[in-house]
Order: sequence, then structure tokens, then C-alpha cells
Amino acid sequence: MLNFTFSNKTRVHFGENQISQVTNEIPLSAKVLLTYGGGSIKKNGVYDQVIEALAKHTVFEFSGIEPNPSYETSMKAVALVKQENIDYILAVGGGSVVDASKFIAAAAEFNGEPWDILAKGAKVESAVALGVVLTLPATGSESNGGAVISKLATKDKLAFMSEFVLPQFAVLDPSVMNSLPARQLSNGVVDAFIHTTEQYLTYSVNAKIQDRFAEGILHTLIEEGPKLFTDEKNNDVNANVMWSATQALNGLIGSGVPQDWATHMIGHEITITFGLDHAQTLAIVLPRLLWEMRETKQDKLLQYASRIWGINEGDTESRIKLAIEKTEQFFHSVQMKTRFSDYQLGEEVVEVIVSQLERHGLTQLGEKQLITLDHSRNILKQSL
Amino acid sequence: MLNFTFSNKTRVHFGENQISQVTNEIPLSAKVLLTYGGGSIKKNGVYDQVIEALAKHTVFEFSGIEPNPSYETSMKAVALVKQENIDYILAVGGGSVVDASKFIAAAAEFNGEPWDILAKGAKVESAVALGVVLTLPATGSESNGGAVISKLATKDKLAFMSEFVLPQFAVLDPSVMNSLPARQLSNGVVDAFIHTTEQYLTYSVNAKIQDRFAEGILHTLIEEGPKLFTDEKNNDVNANVMWSATQALNGLIGSGVPQDWATHMIGHEITITFGLDHAQTLAIVLPRLLWEMRETKQDKLLQYASRIWGINEGDTESRIKLAIEKTEQFFHSVQMKTRFSDYQLGEEVVEVIVSQLERHGLTQLGEKQLITLDHSRNILKQSL
Repeated sequence: MLNFTFSNKTRVHFGENQISQVTNEIPLSAKVLLTYGGGSIKKNGVYDQVIEALAKHTVFEFSGIEPNPSYETSMKAVALVKQENIDYILAVGGGSVVDASKFIAAAAEFNGEPWDILAKGAKVESAVALGVVLTLPATGSESNGGAVISKLATKDKLAFMSEFVLPQFAVLDPSVMNSLPARQLSNGVVDAFIHTTEQYLTYSVNAKIQDRFAEGILHTLIEEGPKLFTDEKNNDVNANVMWSATQALNGLIGSGVPQDWATHMIGHEITITFGLDHAQTLAIVLPRLLWEMRETKQDKLLQYASRIWGINEGDTESRIKLAIEKTEQFFHSVQMKTRFSDYQLGEEVVEVIVSQLERHGLTQLGEKQLITLDHSRNILKQSL
Repeated sequence: MLNFTFSNKTRVHFGENQISQVTNEIPLSAKVLLTYGGGSIKKNGVYDQVIEALAKHTVFEFSGIEPNPSYETSMKAVALVKQENIDYILAVGGGSVVDASKFIAAAAEFNGEPWDILAKGAKVESAVALGVVLTLPATGSESNGGAVISKLATKDKLAFMSEFVLPQFAVLDPSVMNSLPARQLSNGVVDAFIHTTEQYLTYSVNAKIQDRFAEGILHTLIEEGPKLFTDEKNNDVNANVMWSATQALNGLIGSGVPQDWATHMIGHEITITFGLDHAQTLAIVLPRLLWEMRETKQDKLLQYASRIWGINEGDTESRIKLAIEKTEQFFHSVQMKTRFSDYQLGEEVVEVIVSQLERHGLTQLGEKQLITLDHSRNILKQSL
């Protein structure tokens, strides 16, 4: 096991009817900015519950945060935060709203050009306090300090991390998943699954708890994910998927182990250039990336084949091949496609994405930094 | 899954040479009280590392905290904390030192008779800040808000919980385990194992992540625990056991699920009356408690039999019986005995313990409060 420091102070309120916890979580003296997306929260009752919980607070609103939230939109909210002296941001939505709110929280107190936080790794030294009411389980952003923001003008999709934007609290009510469209559920399950593999399918450092917990998340998503699209969907299924997604990226399973994240880096470039949903890009890249890097990932891929898919027979290559096939079948079972051609995209994507990776300096990706542009090119070609 | 609120803000520094983190964790302005036990930390180098880390701090010391720490000893430290205006306690030791330090931290700021915190559930409303350098993985006390204290004068062993005594930070250096005697290693493995079963072997609420994580801890302890007593012992083995013990009782696997704790309640009475180590009592009680309550715990016992021990054949009773036998064999494999007779105790224990349980109002124990004094009596009789 590698040395690590782990802490996560986000207070999670999990279960039905927990949105009322917002009342006591946010000081009554705070000026609150409610941030949200396209307005689905007004149809599913979440908005009403939040407003009721904040009945005695001073509340401002900022809506219209888009999927793959943009720097451009976020900066409008930053202006509002400064103008109204907001001192608490309550993000009500999925990963996009939460990520945007983190950037808004940091940018509002940043001296200088906030884009530098993303583009130059400029240090965040304070942020407006942040709380979350989660409406879509997927990114784990509700209890971590990371966020991904896109600059539309320049086609940059970049990440930053700061303990200052870790949410103070997060409300996870699984019943809100009942109003989600299938596409968002597919995205959520696949995103959580691949967050887990990014921290698990690397090389072994004999970190047994981290491996077992990662496997527990994968098993749960495999068992429960497909039920979301059938009559078996109920609040227990929702809850198990929701809690999986949080555990997949709250820092716990990644503590003391190597991490990959190449699938995400390549995926980000696909989203910013071709507009696919984040999880759609991951599901295209992961199967081919695992195959491309099967030698350096061999031990963990064999462990994955055995413990997750029960594959114990055959030679090494055939076991790995079958495990990757099973993974792709699982994605299909949650209504997720796994090829560029499924989105009417062809060979034209390959060099565009490779150029983007090169432009962003992403020429040595993965847990051992062995994924060169040639590897990325091959992964993309095999994914057509 | 049941509704829950989970948070755990203890910052864990894990790995070799992490004791130096103490320097930055404790404000330089703080007056620090170093608390420890019988002095083994002076032989294994931990004391020297801590003193080096606190070279620029003002440090007082309080040693002599015993296993199953007492109210009587703790109150001496409380007097010192008040006299010297201590504002940070650094507990260096195992669960006993940490638990005592929690009580000291709370009692020093408590208005009234501190014993009421334990005996009457009097509310803790503040506490001296607490940090931990852990020397013995077992209780999970390094990152939870619970503590168990014994009053020798009256043979009471009682617990309290408060978020105010949750350690601010905990240093977990697995190499400190190399100097531990076998008996303490046995105790640690068994304690962590039974903390896990107390939160897992109840009844199903379809909480799949919690089940999988609990099973991950059990698997790891079963795989790694016995190696502590062989040539296979190394820092990876130490680390896996140590991280298992923390995860077993930091609140995570118990969130959203029913909990038992009857084994602990019965065990506490055995320790306070007959002096057995805490984990020794648990290893005696658990096998018979699981058998006694096999009907109400049936579904989880069958899941345990299958997932942990690979037992999938035979009728219900025989599968449960075999799983319990395997559990007991595992305890033996980590040099832990499982019968009163192993400690030269006989039938005389039964009514003494039953009286203690009655005196403490522990007449309806377990996740469904179905463990009456008659059940406890039978569990004890079967454990002779």
C-alpha cells in the first residue's frame, strides 16, 4: 500500500425526505445562492422542497447551468455572488451543477483571472461555503473537492481540485431518481463504474481493503444498474446506485493506490470536440484502453476477471478479453453504447482527438504514464 | 437501506514515517498533553518520534493509562488538563489510550460529575481537541466519536459517543505493529472482525454497498490476520490489517443498516468481572450468540456463509453451523481462544454475568432487542 492522507468532512444526509436538513445546515444569517440547471427540479418537486427548507433564509437564484458546465456561464454567477455578497452556495442538481458551483465558489474569492485555476493550476486559497442537494448520482462531486469546467471559446475541458470547495454537506435523496430520464441514469451508472475502474484497474500495491471496496462498488452497480430500466426499479435500487456513485469518488477507494484517469482525459477531449455526454465517451474509450494496456494492467485485469465476472479458466489473454467483453455487455445492459459509430462518428475523430491531447500536453497518460499519443490513437481507432 | 447521516472529519495520515505529520497538525501555540499507557512506546521508538515532532511545542505528559481504561485514572489526567490549561491532547497508543483520552477531553470541559456522561448519558457539549498516534490497530477509536470507560470501584464498563471527541487527525504507521506482542495482535484482529459482524450479521435492509464493504473487511482480516503470526508478516500485511480495523468502526459500514452490539455488551460484563481482554470475551460470545439467534439472523448468516466461506451446499442449519465453525477456526488461527474453559473459568461465570446485565438494564439486546436474559444465559452456558 502507498502512503496517503485521507479526509472527507462532507456530512451526508441520505434517504427520503432528507432535503429538510438544508434548513439547519445553512446558517440563518447566510445570503444563499441557489444554483441549478435547466429547471427539471421545478417539475420533480425538488425545487419546492428546497425553497420550503430555506423559507427563513435570504435566497438568490442562478439557473441555466448546462451539462459540461462552462466557464462562460459560471462567470455570470460569479458576478452575482460578488454583487450580492453571497456567503453560501447551495447547488441543486447533478455533477454539472455541483462542479460549476465549486468553480463559482472558488472564483468569487480568487484574486486574478479565475481561468488560471483550471489552465495554470493557480492555487485556490478560499471559497464561498458550498452545500449540495444531489439530483443525479454519477460524479461523486457531492463529496469531493474536484470539478471539471469547459471553456467553450477555446474547446478546453479542464479540472481543478481544492479542499476549499469540498461541500460542507450533501443531501442524497434516492427518490429524486424516479424522475430522471433513462439517458441520465445510464450516464450515472457508467460514470460511477468507470470512476471505480480508474482507481482499481492499474497495478497491484497489495492494498486489499481498497481492492475489496472497489469490487464491492462494481458488483453493486452490475447488480443494481440494469434494474433502473425495468419494473424492478424502486427506492432501494436507487439508493444502492446512489451510494455506489458517492463511494466511487469520495477519495476512499483511491487512497494508497495508483490511479489511471486516462479514460477520463481522452473522454474529455471527445466531449469538448464532438459533444457526446461525458459517460458516453468513457464507455467508448475504456474497453479499448484496457485491451491496449493489458500487459501493464495484467494482474489487476485478471483479478477483475475472476472476482467480478467469475472468469477463472483459459489463458491470460482470453480471460482478459472475456472480462472486457463482459464489461461492454454490462454497459449495453444499462442502455449505454460503446462505439463512435453508434453516434454517427467515424475515422475523422481520431486525429482531432489526438491533436487535442497533444495541445493539452496529455502525451503520457495513465498510472505509469505509459499511454503515449500512439497508444491513444490506437485506442481511438479500435473504438470506431 | 435505512436513512442515515454520515460524516467523519478525522484526517488520517497512513503509512511509514507519517508520525512527523503531528508537527503541522497541532497548532504551535497549543499546550499539548501527551497521553500514553505503560511505556511500550518508549521501547519501540514511537515516543521518540512523537517528541521529535513536538520539539517546538509545549508538552506535558500523562502516562499509565491501563487496558480497559478506568474512570479513576482518567480523572487524574482531567485534573492535570485543568491545572495546566491544556488545549490539545495527543493520544499515543491503542484503543484504551484513545478512549481514555476522549473521556479526559470531554470531562475536562464538562460542568458537573463527568461519570454522568457514561452512567446517565449526560450530553457532551465541548471537548479539548484530540489527535491520535495509533500503535495498535483494533478498536477504530482513532476515527470515531465513541469510547468505553470502566469504573473499577463499581464494576461498570460503559460507553459514550460524542462528535466533540472525534479525533481531529490520526497517524496510522503500520510499522509500529512490528513491536507488538502476539496477544495484542490477536486482540486487534478479532476486535476488528467482530466490530464488522456487529454491523453486518443482523437482518437485510438491502444495503448492498454496506454489505460488500463489510465483507471486504472480513475477507481481508481472514486473509491477512493469520500472516501476522508467521514469516509472511510484513508492512503490507500490517497495513491491510490496520486499515481494516479503522474501516470496521469509523461509521461507514454501519450507516443505513441495523446494528447488533449484543456480543460487545455481554463481553464488557465479562471483562469487568473476570478480567479477560476485550477481544477474548468477544471471541467467546460471538459463535454462540450467532447460533442462539440464527433464526432472526438467518438471511445474513446464509449470505455470510456463502460470500465469506464459500458455503453453498446443505440445508439452512448446517450451512449456518459450518459458517460459525469456520469463524471459530479463524479465531484460533490468529491465536485466539473461544471458550471460558480456555481461561480456567467454569459455570460460576454464568449467573454473575447475567446479574451484571440485569443490573445495567441490558435485558433486551441486539438489532431487534430480542436477546433477553434467558438468551444471554444460554449463550454463556453454551460457551463454557
